[in-house]
Amino acid sequence: MTEWAFDAAVAVEPVDGDERRWRGVADARWNVGPVPNGGYLMSLVVSAARRAAAHADPLAVTAYYAARTEPGPVEIDVEPLQPGRRHSTVLARLVQGDRTRIAVSATFFDAGAATGPTMLSEPPAEIPPPEACVPASGPLAPALLAQFDLRLTPETAAWAVGQPSGVPEIAGWARFADGRPADTHSLCVFADVFPPTTFNILPIAWVPTLELTVHVRARPRGEWLRCRFRTRFVTGGYLEEDGELWDEDGRLVAQSRQLALASGPPAPRGAPPAG
Amino acid sequence: MTEWAFDAAVAVEPVDGDERRWRGVADARWNVGPVPNGGYLMSLVVSAARRAAAHADPLAVTAYYAARTEPGPVEIDVEPLQPGRRHSTVLARLVQGDRTRIAVSATFFDAGAATGPTMLSEPPAEIPPPEACVPASGPLAPALLAQFDLRLTPETAAWAVGQPSGVPEIAGWARFADGRPADTHSLCVFADVFPPTTFNILPIAWVPTLELTVHVRARPRGEWLRCRFRTRFVTGGYLEEDGELWDEDGRLVAQSRQLALASGPPAPRGAPPAG
Repeated sequence: MTEWAFDAAVAVEPVDGDERRWRGVADARWNVGPVPNGGYLMSLVVSAARRAAAHADPLAVTAYYAARTEPGPVEIDVEPLQPGRRHSTVLARLVQGDRTRIAVSATFFDAGAATGPTMLSEPPAEIPPPEACVPASGPLAPALLAQFDLRLTPETAAWAVGQPSGVPEIAGWARFADGRPADTHSLCVFADVFPPTTFNILPIAWVPTLELTVHVRARPRGEWLRCRFRTRFVTGGYLEEDGELWDEDGRLVAQSRQLALASGPPAPRGAPPAG
Repeated sequence: MTEWAFDAAVAVEPVDGDERRWRGVADARWNVGPVPNGGYLMSLVVSAARRAAAHADPLAVTAYYAARTEPGPVEIDVEPLQPGRRHSTVLARLVQGDRTRIAVSATFFDAGAATGPTMLSEPPAEIPPPEACVPASGPLAPALLAQFDLRLTPETAAWAVGQPSGVPEIAGWARFADGRPADTHSLCVFADVFPPTTFNILPIAWVPTLELTVHVRARPRGEWLRCRFRTRFVTGGYLEEDGELWDEDGRLVAQSRQLALASGPPAPRGAPPAG
């Protein structure tokens, strides 16, 4: 049996008998530049956390990226809190060299058992089909992108040819390159795999994630995810990036928000003060 | 010297010498129904966490509400992670009866030192001045609201007289009742003090917060905060509530997102499946 690349990259094994400490490897093939992608690392931590949860699916996962994680071995410490009937919360941390690099909180639920009301104010993002979008790959793309089939809408991809749209939005399609179906676990990495929205409004530069929260709404069906990420407020270099992910059936499967830090030129004179 | 009500309600004192464990009281005067408001409890935890931080202002604060907190004494455990130059992250938890009720992650920064670019895609919410809004008070209001001067726009407040707008939005103004100026610490409670957006689309019922994240963007000036909270997606009872808070000068001072759970009638036949 061939293992999917994602599952191999987020594999963990227990260090001790009580399953509170796990070992894994931050795989450089999931890097952006010299460091592993934040959503990938969140997925790696969730691999361990879910073993301690009383419910199957991540519902809300938050990562605070307190220090850089290097590719290579990691330890994941897991602490389940007392579960409730519908939800169970697990606290976890990714540790390298005795230093906590990422702190994760995660609440799990049974995505198949949600029975409350459903009311959607917005349809899925209207974007052209994958065939009409621009593949995000090539020799300059981050290593991470070899793991995905990522297609950007022509409008939101033109920064790559020196024509940023001026609108802080990135939209397109994503699926795993090896055909692995998306599931609630892998939504954590899909929520962070697209290029930063800032590439359309600021010089292309490193945009480190400080905090990322993913809310899972449903189990995705099919391979392709239809995704849109938007930024409304850049203040003093800090910005939110809000994402929505729909599956092939047009169902909202996840929302994400991250707080990131853009480098770039200082605010021009006359702009609102930054802080 | 008279102490402001907020500062009294979030006061903490160290239990031991190393300042890793603190004592406080969850004050029933900040209740909604039988339990203390989630944003107030976040502020209480931040009171302890900020003592351990290397920077003055909360930048991002996330609370996972794993179990109900009762009014009365609480303990707050605090663990600072190794700080960076611009940011320091502190993990904290609110404990009652040896059980972790709330897990908090918080990154602190110096809001006065943010020097990156500022670009806003949206102006502050256009809402009528406080005098033209509807005071949210009265004998049926939650105890919490006595701590605030809260004014809702007539359009988003009409659920209170049996005329929900049908739009999942709440907007208005808020300040402390005793005149305490808003600061970055108190933005945590302002982000959770307004009635749920669902009151305009679903029967009025308990809407417990599962996860709340507040991103502070700037130090507020003045007393009044101009606030708007919106929901776009209710799926299987789960919903996001996204907030923006501006100060009297029209500066964005915070964004918030919470994941909450609406009870209410099940989705009608023919509605998109919930999960």
